[in-house]
Amino acid sequence: MIVFNITSPDTGITCELQQKIDNLTKPKGSLGTLETLAMQIGLIQQTLSPSLRKPVNIIFAADHGIADEGVSKSPKEVTRQMISNFLDGGAGICFLARQHGFQLKVVDAGVDYVFSPDPRIINHKIRKGTRNFLHESAMTISEMELALQYGADLVTECHHNGSNIISFGEMGIANTAASSMWMTCLTDIPLPDCVGAGSGLDDEGVRHKQQVLQAALDNYKGDHSVLNVMRYFGGYEMVMAVGGMLRAAELKMVILVDGFIMTNCVLAASKLYPEVLSYCIYGHCGDESGHKKLLEILHATPLLHLGLRLGEGTGAICAYPIVDSAVRMINRMHSFSKASVTKYF
Amino acid sequence: MIVFNITSPDTGITCELQQKIDNLTKPKGSLGTLETLAMQIGLIQQTLSPSLRKPVNIIFAADHGIADEGVSKSPKEVTRQMISNFLDGGAGICFLARQHGFQLKVVDAGVDYVFSPDPRIINHKIRKGTRNFLHESAMTISEMELALQYGADLVTECHHNGSNIISFGEMGIANTAASSMWMTCLTDIPLPDCVGAGSGLDDEGVRHKQQVLQAALDNYKGDHSVLNVMRYFGGYEMVMAVGGMLRAAELKMVILVDGFIMTNCVLAASKLYPEVLSYCIYGHCGDESGHKKLLEILHATPLLHLGLRLGEGTGAICAYPIVDSAVRMINRMHSFSKASVTKYF
Repeated sequence: MIVFNITSPDTGITCELQQKIDNLTKPKGSLGTLETLAMQIGLIQQTLSPSLRKPVNIIFAADHGIADEGVSKSPKEVTRQMISNFLDGGAGICFLARQHGFQLKVVDAGVDYVFSPDPRIINHKIRKGTRNFLHESAMTISEMELALQYGADLVTECHHNGSNIISFGEMGIANTAASSMWMTCLTDIPLPDCVGAGSGLDDEGVRHKQQVLQAALDNYKGDHSVLNVMRYFGGYEMVMAVGGMLRAAELKMVILVDGFIMTNCVLAASKLYPEVLSYCIYGHCGDESGHKKLLEILHATPLLHLGLRLGEGTGAICAYPIVDSAVRMINRMHSFSKASVTKYF
Repeated sequence: MIVFNITSPDTGITCELQQKIDNLTKPKGSLGTLETLAMQIGLIQQTLSPSLRKPVNIIFAADHGIADEGVSKSPKEVTRQMISNFLDGGAGICFLARQHGFQLKVVDAGVDYVFSPDPRIINHKIRKGTRNFLHESAMTISEMELALQYGADLVTECHHNGSNIISFGEMGIANTAASSMWMTCLTDIPLPDCVGAGSGLDDEGVRHKQQVLQAALDNYKGDHSVLNVMRYFGGYEMVMAVGGMLRAAELKMVILVDGFIMTNCVLAASKLYPEVLSYCIYGHCGDESGHKKLLEILHATPLLHLGLRLGEGTGAICAYPIVDSAVRMINRMHSFSKASVTKYF
């Protein structure tokens, strides 16, 4: 089993960072969250002059056996169709990536379709979709280990190419269902509070999704350990994201967290290595039921509240300029003494 | 008295805009506020393919006679010192303007200091600060009219130069005090709920500020009309911003609204011409006490909640990339038919 060596940032420079922030020409604390972010990134990078380099968004795509139970509004073929849309630049994540200078990497983690070889698709297909967790474990132990390794290796490559900030997105019909299972099993939150409308179920659809997931929970005979929950209910795209997050923390990269599904990946990652949380910045609180509760459990303060629920990394990248603003603030604002302004606090 | 010809956008293309937004490759509504913004800007510009051009942030700076009563944590000289900081590129607004491509215009609307002639400062000084409204009207009728005209003319110039989106910022020690007076007089909200800490008063300081402002309210013998309230308590920078906002709406420009002070300017502007509200996008809900209540009264949904309370236009410009994202979404995302994706809602 892959092992990660993750440590929390050294807090030795906290005072120096705070002094630098407080001496910028503004009332103390008046740039709110920008100041908090500058502190966090300064600690992660162990510098008073942090920088953001070569941001990357990795989209992991995979299918889910549980989709056969009608838990999603969308047909399974949408997963593969959206891969083409990512490559053609027409998806939601594409205009955001171009706007904010993110490189997009599209990974076939386990789509139920055989693509023609295409250098733009990273082929890490583990299987043509997971097994149906209503009846059996979604993946085997070795499949999970391979997914963790693939995710970690991709991040190593990004880091090697100069990136120090990364976000993860997903595409996978029925993956809110899988995420709800992780959430209820890894927290004390009852299943109904973890289940939402996904891509757009009506009330009847949500009720059916809840019934299916309750039955799956009743059938589950695992040991409730993090790794067991991950492989029993997880998608390949979710496990790869966990591996990616853990490697990013190991390499002291900033992790920009997307919506409900990726926040569940943070949850799982943090149950394995709590130190990963020091590296996370939460892009947004989405509209999917349960996301707000999950963020509370993680003591997370999301940057945006824009009612997004698209996934793909959109809620992470949409928040990137705020993170960028924080870094520019600490590097480019003048101090009271440099600007000859009376310190007014 | 200057007159504005402001009409609400024609809603004839609402259905067409909604259809275009709903046919983009995402679950219906899943880009939340980005979709709302795309609709609003499409209506303002009367097109299915809106665009943002040459954004400008005009900072109006002026001093306030009421500062003599100790209602601000900061000494008056900070107003003029910060003008230099704006010009030197060291202030909060500067790094944000550079980040998001805003032109900055710095206007001396009435600073209590005589600057050496400098082409970078637009000299619209009406007087070296307003009079102290504890005892008398802050400005005369003709001063107010001149301020409205100056503000409007500046926006006309920006529009002439190709700008179609504009924000307004302010610098003026004690202008949260003036804003609180506008707010309580132009709404039903009691004075104490309109008064906050400004640049950083402690509890005792806030109590003193409230007492001074209550005394000013008791002394006020005006007719409570919008124009009378504006001139009795207002700052030159605030009245110029009102003039600028009204002209921007007349010219069908998008108005990006900053914090507590600028939201009070929207309030005053809307009491004169309610149609101005159709053109406003609210950048953020700031930390200044009263801002949240004021936004509620205006039925405004601010884009950011980042605890900002700096002014200068920072909360407006910080939100600009989200507005830009909305415009990119409607122009650049592919439709279901173009992308050959099964429409999944």
